[in-house]
Amino acid sequence: MAENKIKTIGVLTSGGDAPGMNAAIRAVVRRGLSSGLNVKGIYKGYSGLLNEEIRDMTAKDVSDTIERGGTILYTARCAEMRTEEGQQQAAEICRKHGIDGLVVIGGDGSFAGAQKLANLGINTIGLPGTIDLDIACTEYTIGFDTAVNTAMEAIDKVRDTSTSHERCSIIEVMGRNAGYLAVWCGIANGAEDVLIPEKYDYDEQKLIDNIVESRKKGKKHHIIVNAEGIGHSEAMAKRIEAATGIETRATILGHMQRGGNPTCKDRVYASMMGALAVDLLVAGKRSRVVGYRHGEFVDFDINEALAMQKNVDSYMWEVCNSLSHNYRK
Amino acid sequence: MAENKIKTIGVLTSGGDAPGMNAAIRAVVRRGLSSGLNVKGIYKGYSGLLNEEIRDMTAKDVSDTIERGGTILYTARCAEMRTEEGQQQAAEICRKHGIDGLVVIGGDGSFAGAQKLANLGINTIGLPGTIDLDIACTEYTIGFDTAVNTAMEAIDKVRDTSTSHERCSIIEVMGRNAGYLAVWCGIANGAEDVLIPEKYDYDEQKLIDNIVESRKKGKKHHIIVNAEGIGHSEAMAKRIEAATGIETRATILGHMQRGGNPTCKDRVYASMMGALAVDLLVAGKRSRVVGYRHGEFVDFDINEALAMQKNVDSYMWEVCNSLSHNYRK
Amino acid sequence: MAENKIKTIGVLTSGGDAPGMNAAIRAVVRRGLSSGLNVKGIYKGYSGLLNEEIRDMTAKDVSDTIERGGTILYTARCAEMRTEEGQQQAAEICRKHGIDGLVVIGGDGSFAGAQKLANLGINTIGLPGTIDLDIACTEYTIGFDTAVNTAMEAIDKVRDTSTSHERCSIIEVMGRNAGYLAVWCGIANGAEDVLIPEKYDYDEQKLIDNIVESRKKGKKHHIIVNAEGIGHSEAMAKRIEAATGIETRATILGHMQRGGNPTCKDRVYASMMGALAVDLLVAGKRSRVVGYRHGEFVDFDINEALAMQKNVDSYMWEVCNSLSHNYRK
Amino acid sequence: MAENKIKTIGVLTSGGDAPGMNAAIRAVVRRGLSSGLNVKGIYKGYSGLLNEEIRDMTAKDVSDTIERGGTILYTARCAEMRTEEGQQQAAEICRKHGIDGLVVIGGDGSFAGAQKLANLGINTIGLPGTIDLDIACTEYTIGFDTAVNTAMEAIDKVRDTSTSHERCSIIEVMGRNAGYLAVWCGIANGAEDVLIPEKYDYDEQKLIDNIVESRKKGKKHHIIVNAEGIGHSEAMAKRIEAATGIETRATILGHMQRGGNPTCKDRVYASMMGALAVDLLVAGKRSRVVGYRHGEFVDFDINEALAMQKNVDSYMWEVCNSLSHNYRK
Repeated sequence: MAENKIKTIGVLTSGGDAPGMNAAIRAVVRRGLSSGLNVKGIYKGYSGLLNEEIRDMTAKDVSDTIERGGTILYTARCAEMRTEEGQQQAAEICRKHGIDGLVVIGGDGSFAGAQKLANLGINTIGLPGTIDLDIACTEYTIGFDTAVNTAMEAIDKVRDTSTSHERCSIIEVMGRNAGYLAVWCGIANGAEDVLIPEKYDYDEQKLIDNIVESRKKGKKHHIIVNAEGIGHSEAMAKRIEAATGIETRATILGHMQRGGNPTCKDRVYASMMGALAVDLLVAGKRSRVVGYRHGEFVDFDINEALAMQKNVDSYMWEVCNSLSHNYRK
Repeated sequence: MAENKIKTIGVLTSGGDAPGMNAAIRAVVRRGLSSGLNVKGIYKGYSGLLNEEIRDMTAKDVSDTIERGGTILYTARCAEMRTEEGQQQAAEICRKHGIDGLVVIGGDGSFAGAQKLANLGINTIGLPGTIDLDIACTEYTIGFDTAVNTAMEAIDKVRDTSTSHERCSIIEVMGRNAGYLAVWCGIANGAEDVLIPEKYDYDEQKLIDNIVESRKKGKKHHIIVNAEGIGHSEAMAKRIEAATGIETRATILGHMQRGGNPTCKDRVYASMMGALAVDLLVAGKRSRVVGYRHGEFVDFDINEALAMQKNVDSYMWEVCNSLSHNYRK
Repeated sequence: MAENKIKTIGVLTSGGDAPGMNAAIRAVVRRGLSSGLNVKGIYKGYSGLLNEEIRDMTAKDVSDTIERGGTILYTARCAEMRTEEGQQQAAEICRKHGIDGLVVIGGDGSFAGAQKLANLGINTIGLPGTIDLDIACTEYTIGFDTAVNTAMEAIDKVRDTSTSHERCSIIEVMGRNAGYLAVWCGIANGAEDVLIPEKYDYDEQKLIDNIVESRKKGKKHHIIVNAEGIGHSEAMAKRIEAATGIETRATILGHMQRGGNPTCKDRVYASMMGALAVDLLVAGKRSRVVGYRHGEFVDFDINEALAMQKNVDSYMWEVCNSLSHNYRK
Repeated sequence: MAENKIKTIGVLTSGGDAPGMNAAIRAVVRRGLSSGLNVKGIYKGYSGLLNEEIRDMTAKDVSDTIERGGTILYTARCAEMRTEEGQQQAAEICRKHGIDGLVVIGGDGSFAGAQKLANLGINTIGLPGTIDLDIACTEYTIGFDTAVNTAMEAIDKVRDTSTSHERCSIIEVMGRNAGYLAVWCGIANGAEDVLIPEKYDYDEQKLIDNIVESRKKGKKHHIIVNAEGIGHSEAMAKRIEAATGIETRATILGHMQRGGNPTCKDRVYASMMGALAVDLLVAGKRSRVVGYRHGEFVDFDINEALAMQKNVDSYMWEVCNSLSHNYRK
């Protein structure tokens, strides 16, 4: 039995960075050390793994990091890791460094790499780290809570000036192909319209009619939260202004949504997930993805996790709409 | 059938205020109006109900409120509502104003009043509104997320100065008899020690030894998050300073934890709960408490809800400890 | 003497809104009332003046406004006010409503209108309200402090992710033709390069060399703060990425810089300026602009004020540069 | 001439820490290095100087510090430095380490030490670093702007809950014997009463009458900002509640006011002051204190600076009062 015991684990962040990743790294490091393991930090994602940018981590290395945005391990895209050759080399390097378990913090793309490594015999545990919430097996992803608060606060500010000038404002939030950030902001900012890829029918005339009607009823501003997956906010603003005569401005919030000190939830949940990843490795589990589901931190087989589907909750979407424009009925 | 249809609902906030209550009120009002109901706002909790401080609400009355702390309906304690006479009078007034359903946003104490009204034939729906998270039937209460972020940000600031001066700092957070706020901050702020009523053994010597040992190992600060349910932070600071010779200061965060613009989660979840409360009334459900459990917005019988028990999650508590002082092993 | 005494004053906000305008309005209203004057709020700037959107203000009308962004009096552009006819009509309406003194909160464009009214016999006092700091007679303008903090905090966030990905980031801040916001952010965010219209020589090759050299020396990110007066950040990002091979992204912060709860300085200085405006009117002064200069709140003749020039402080500009890239020498 | 040229400078922070100190340290280091000097960081104030906790600083040592609260050089009280023996030893150590000029960032107490060192032949430059603004020669001190915003934001939050519960709230802000923080918050938070040591007549009955009268006029809350120099907020709250029957709560904001990420102004002004300190040393100036006065960064002889007096601006105090309770006249 003893020979099955893992001794050394590695941790890396991959793909787009997300606030809370440092909390997860810290938890992996400290939980690992307090479980008697060696912990190695792998810098710059899979790219750094292939370049062997690997260092031993101490408890102190992660001091004063839980409150910081970004990732102290850096991150990078890695085309090589999509090739079979790259994957085999990565597995080789893990073995060379005695890494018995690898914690990969990232999104679906990063998990695909983890899955390949798992198939090559390297035990990997995926932690969902993305501001987009677009990982099917989990209701929570590291960074979403911070990003959605950052976006919401920015939209609150745009709303102030939008009201003062009685403008229509389109604010484009991130989310890649998913509308979660947009729906949450739509509800939280009391937006008049929310456009998400999962639901938008591209009937811009309806949108324009809505704006005109709303203005007639005395609304001082008209806030449209537009998801990145739809995009083209500048052009949309021009068309709306042309059609309605109402001054319309677009703001694309951009990369500020990826940064910032993590919120309490992101710090706490990322810490829990990091600790659980280590506990799974210690318990001898193999090739899992950690998720938060039905109110609990759980783990799934990596292949099953990648095959799952999820969608914007239809009741939430319905409420989102009923609290914004439908109430004018 | 038609005579069962409700026509008019009321909404009030009761007990301690919590950020997000306005989002819940707004959702009740707008969901109510868009469901064809009349909605009456009852000011100052049960006290205002007894004084008939009741006004019709329009969609516009709740404009620009979702982002604001406090409660636009005000709140107050009401000793009278604990008497049978008061309860009967309250039921009478509901009937007089044609209130077919009453949404009560507050904590356990407020639900006790709601339960009495329910027994007197007034259909009531409770929404969990408290920063303390101490309502058994739900994993989420309106205001907790904002309060825990407010406390965390304050502790981040105390930590800066605590490090600069190499001090020990005790920060007392709210939570009444529950330690949820303290545990979350404990994890999120990387506190060296967390004291909560559910777990603290009052072995102050152990705490002192921990501080001394930690200082020896080179830690520049020592943050103790102390829950309100334990309290006495000032005296504790004096004893610790006397015993360790390390400068020790107490900060009691106090009422600022109750205020502030609600976070995105509090705005969204409070909106969902407010909408669900109306939907339950429209669906003819009676005497329910809305909760968030296992990842869903659900409802419970008010008597069952009040009989439930919950506790700080033991895995979370264990992780909290392992990431703070245990890692020094 | 008594017939010289003013009895009624008006207040309006004009041009782009700025955080702190509400504090100024509140101060005009309350200082006016406590000086025994009637105070009339004019809505939507000069446009509302011409449409006689004028209401009496009470102390309560400005309660709970000091902490809010935007302007409760709204603002609008007004082409008519640039015509002689419009100006005469505006003066007429002031006389009709018995407005003995008019406080105009806005930028240079708004002061031009005020100057015209002054020439037509309407006593006007200008308060400098713009986030751009581009009013020559004053070292402080209402809204600058909030806007520069908003921009700085956004850039802090972009910097997190820029570091994690080892990217070059161009962040475009507002300021119209002036570089104040950019210089302040440049220093406060420790930007590697700051581009302002007053100083930029459009030598992009120098900028590119700087980026390449900086990367060679191990800098993980390269932050360029670009002023609106230079603009074209997206195209610049593409050229830089093409020339350096370093991933480069542009973020245009946009209208969020105009909103948000005002900072303490903006609340306090706007309050002082609003009070001083009333005091000047009560003291019988005519056609002044309030400024903050050499550490004091002062007033200037409106014609003199409009003829003044100012520029980015050369020592500040020099320090800005020496703390960013020059230190690498 | 050449032998007069300084080669090595030291920098330390002393007394209470203040946000922006890191920006000042960074500016001293980078301006020093770019001026061709060696820069030594002295840890833990005068105490660390006496213990020779002195390290060479590189540009990189101050990377990513401008946005952080606290002081990376730590700070401590030092009783020894108040003795002649300690002072001579400190001067000796400076000479031993070849420190030709010493930049001391701190308050009046720290400058007293600097003055002694100056008298012993060590060229010292003082930078005003204190959240209390209580340094006579300057209108700005490093940290005040951040602290006053932190306090203001906390009071905004208390105000939310104070309004919801129709309470009287006393909020105690820092400031030692000076009332600057309290006056600024008083204006910025629209406090009903502001108590500062420079002005308070300890006529509590007047305060109580004011509260009662205000409540009669329909004010939902009553905010009293109380300066640390008056203190005793808890006892005051009890007396007010007893006398008025209005629920009254005290909040002592405490050490959180010392921490937090510095505001833009604190980062920029601290950077300017740090750079100027180095420029003064390079220019051969001796024993100066840097200040901000009449809109400019200036320097004073250290003895003259310590002999100056200043007071809360009487116009600001008058405006503060006229915008809060006097307006009810």
